Order: sequence, then C-alpha cells, then structure tokens
Amino acid sequence: MSLVVVGSAGLDDVQTPHGSVQGAVGGSAVYFSLAASLFAPVKIAANIGADYPEGIWRLLAGRGADVSGVRRFPDQPSFRWGGRYQGDMSAAETLHTDLNVLALEPEPPESYRQPALLFLANMGPEVQRRVLERLAPRQVFVDTMNLWIRTQRPALLELLGRVDGLVLNDGEARMLTGEDNLIRAGGALLHLGPRLAVVKKGEHGAFLFHRSFHCALPAYPTSRVLDPTGAGDSFAGGMLGHLAAVGDLEPATLRRAMAYGTVLASFTVEEFSTQALESLDRAAVERRLQELLEFVRL
Amino acid sequence: MSLVVVGSAGLDDVQTPHGSVQGAVGGSAVYFSLAASLFAPVKIAANIGADYPEGIWRLLAGRGADVSGVRRFPDQPSFRWGGRYQGDMSAAETLHTDLNVLALEPEPPESYRQPALLFLANMGPEVQRRVLERLAPRQVFVDTMNLWIRTQRPALLELLGRVDGLVLNDGEARMLTGEDNLIRAGGALLHLGPRLAVVKKGEHGAFLFHRSFHCALPAYPTSRVLDPTGAGDSFAGGMLGHLAAVGDLEPATLRRAMAYGTVLASFTVEEFSTQALESLDRAAVERRLQELLEFVRL
Repeated sequence: MSLVVVGSAGLDDVQTPHGSVQGAVGGSAVYFSLAASLFAPVKIAANIGADYPEGIWRLLAGRGADVSGVRRFPDQPSFRWGGRYQGDMSAAETLHTDLNVLALEPEPPESYRQPALLFLANMGPEVQRRVLERLAPRQVFVDTMNLWIRTQRPALLELLGRVDGLVLNDGEARMLTGEDNLIRAGGALLHLGPRLAVVKKGEHGAFLFHRSFHCALPAYPTSRVLDPTGAGDSFAGGMLGHLAAVGDLEPATLRRAMAYGTVLASFTVEEFSTQALESLDRAAVERRLQELLEFVRL
Repeated sequence: MSLVVVGSAGLDDVQTPHGSVQGAVGGSAVYFSLAASLFAPVKIAANIGADYPEGIWRLLAGRGADVSGVRRFPDQPSFRWGGRYQGDMSAAETLHTDLNVLALEPEPPESYRQPALLFLANMGPEVQRRVLERLAPRQVFVDTMNLWIRTQRPALLELLGRVDGLVLNDGEARMLTGEDNLIRAGGALLHLGPRLAVVKKGEHGAFLFHRSFHCALPAYPTSRVLDPTGAGDSFAGGMLGHLAAVGDLEPATLRRAMAYGTVLASFTVEEFSTQALESLDRAAVERRLQELLEFVRL
C-alpha cells in the first residue's frame, strides 16, 4: 500500500540525565519516515528552513522514500523544540518551542494524493483536517497531543469522526476521554469514531483497541535509554510501515505491526536524536522482533 | 510441593473513588492464601485479634488450606490499616496503621517446618530472617516494602542473599537498586542474591527477571477497578500456587505462573476487599487465563 506522512521536521535541543544535544535532527515526520522506510516506500511532506541539514533526506531517499514533499523555505529557520527529561524520563518538559516554518500550512504535492494509508503526525486538528481533505486517502491514522485536546477539542472530535486510526499516549487518552482506567479510555476512544486506537505507554508498552479485539504488549526491555525523543513517532512509523508492506489491516497484521512499532521505538531511545534509526537495517529489526516475541511468550 | 505463607491478617479501612469499606477482611497472608488455595493446599501463619471474623478461615479450610498457624490473641485487636486511592489508583495513601497483633513475632507451628516453598509476605527483614531460619524451607520467596528499604537496608540485603525469589513493585525496585531504568533495576536485583525477581507494575503488568531469561506481561485488561488493595499479594498467591501445583521452577512454569498471578490480581481489584477472591473458582480463573493469552498474542 502507498504510505504518506505529513508532519514536522525540526531541530531539537534535548537534555537528558545521560547528555544533551543542540540543534539535532528531529521532527515527527522524520522519525516516522526513518522507521517506516525500513518496511515500505514512504512519501514525506514537511516544511523545513534554511538551517535543516540535507543529509537526512539523502539517507531517506536511499531507503526508497519520496522527499519531493519536503518544502525548504530559504529565508526562515526550521521548527525548533527544546526539552528536558529527568528521572525515569517518562515525560519531556518543554523548554522552548519556535514554530517558524511549522506555522505554514503543509502543502503535500499532487503526486501524494489518494494514498492507501496516510499518517497525520501531531498538528492542530484543523490543519490535519485540511490535509486529509486535500489528500483524500483510503485510510488515515492521526496523532494528537494534550495541547489540542485542551484548546481545540471540538475540531479534534470532528476530525476523529473521520479517521480510521488514532495514535496517542496514555495521558492523552485519559485527558481526551475523561476515563482514568485505560481500558475504559480505550473503549471510549473507539466511540469517538476511529476503528482502532493505539495507546502508547512509553516504558510500559502499548495497547491496541480495535472494534473486534484488544491487544497489549510491553516495551522491548532495553537497559539503555538515552533519549526518548521520537519514540512515539518511530512506533507509528514501524507500525504503519508494516501495515503498508503487508497491505491490509487484519487483526494478525495489526498485532504484528504493534510489535514492529515497539521494536522501532526501542532502537530510537537507545541513542540521541535519529542516530540509532539512521544506522539501522532490517536484519537488526528482525533480530529484535524475535527477542520481543520471546520476551512476551507465555 | 508444600506451600507455606507467613504474613498479616488485618482489617482494612479503604477509600477509593468508587466507594469505601470499614474493617474489611484483608492482610497479605489472606489475599495470598485465597489466590494460592485455588491451585494447591497452603499452610497459613498469621496473628489475629479477637475482632477478626471467623468465616474467612472456614472458607480457606474448605479449599484445603491449613489454618492451624493462625494464632488468635483474644484480648488484642487485629492489625488495622487505612488507606485511600485516588485518580488512576496506582498507589495507596496510608491514612493509619495500627500494628496491634502484627507487632508480635509470627510463630508458625512445627508442622509447617521444611516446606518446599515458603512465601514471606511483607514484614521487617529481621522478622523474615527469623521465620526463614525457623521454617528452613527448600525455596523461599520474599516481599518487602519502601519502609524497610529505607530504614532496614542492611538487614534486607543480608536476607536477600539467602532467598530464591523476590517479589516487589516497580517503585520499590527502583528505590532498592538506585536504577531508574526498570530493566537495569531487574538485573541489579539479581545481583543482590535472588535467582529471580518479580517486579509488579500495577495496571502496567509485571516483569520477571531470572538468571536465564526475562519475561513481561501486561495486566489483564479489566475495565472495573474498584479497590487495588491486595492485588500484589493475590499476584504472588496465584504465582506461587501454580509453582507449588506444578512442582518445579522451570522457565515455562515460571512464565505460566506469572500469567496466573496476573489473572488473580485482576479478579481482586474488581471488588472491594476479598469479595472477588472468596467467590472465585478455578474454572473462572482458566477462562480468564485464556483471555489473557489471547490479549498478549502477537
């Protein structure tokens, strides 16, 4: 299935107990694509400024990605995000956010229209809706965040009535549904419209809620967590990459896609920025998938 | 294998967002035994006061448990604990603790000596050590808590050098090892002496760290969590009950034991106090085990 991602490409300033990086390659569309491109060709749409490094697009093109939807604005800086993780690093504290080119509406090219599968990374729900209408995908998955749940709830609810899949974290699921119990929250998410909802719980793994089944899996047990940035988008990339490669959304495919998402997220957190994903190959992914299957075997 | 538990039998005052109970049957040895007795005969040692209801011992005896080690002190009140759960109910706030008969050293009868498997529920590590020496079991699992980790660390470390299995929650594992990453914490626990460590994470499931393998499983997805009290002891009871029934601690047995622990904990939280465990039968346990296996299937 053809796969399109629309999201951000930004430069990140990240501090963790294990070190820090300044102006490192990041952004939801970048993490997603680095993960998804190990499974299937992915078309990437994102806005970048003059300061965004070229190398990452060459690397992605080398993995079969279409980067013709990456729009460079030569007289503006890239989206920039700064954050800090402490303790168990389960949540980032945002230190600064400079939207810059991210404030400009994404405009995926005509050649991206009518994909089989579209991933709308975290953006305002009205922007997501306009991109959805422009691209007219067969199936669409969306991410969101606490800011939109709080400030643009009506627009978000309207959007959710039109999507196939929703990807969000446990705190967002609770906030969106008002349910403290995550199993109830999962059921409530499906009542908002999507056929399936993926609730990511960081080091605690992830749930998949689907109209016909539920499943859960723990995170891959890595003892090396340097930088959680991008883990969620890598999860989505591994998951949707597998779905695109297999070409269906059957329960068995979705279960396996969750496992691939888990594996890709685990690589991401083991290095700062996109370092682990850049050097990753499919054989290493398959080895870790087998380890994960062994880890959860009962 | 013969199975002995030494722990508390107390009366609980519990408040949750879904209701409250006063003077309800509780205590680590009680929750453990109600779970374990669905799998294997269990010998129970606990101190109770004049105010502790008789019915629960009759029920346990009816399930094949040996309650001759339950010592009643007719002129003292039972151990009493009061706690409150809020929000996602992941942690109890203790409102009061009255040790009463729990301050008296446990004295399991001679007939309890040299069991194949002993569970030392949460007590001070010096008390646990004396019970361990008195009973001389073939294998011993211990529980502990933040209070002992903070105030009796040397005695706890000395005890851990002599046990086979350690059962504790994620916060305690982090506190005991000083490792924020739970996978690193799990490895560090094994360096303290035990052959295996079970790290319980409440709604996020549990890890098993063993010298030769690791495994993880999510909690059973119940949407009805009324009262988490006793979930951890029920987990241990389901787990050790299965180990006692099978008669070995092989990896496949341990994995399945973790699943039974998960199932028993899930029943416990669905009602206040011991209500769910009291009316539970093995057939319901097996049905839920199958649901759990389906839930984690990849």
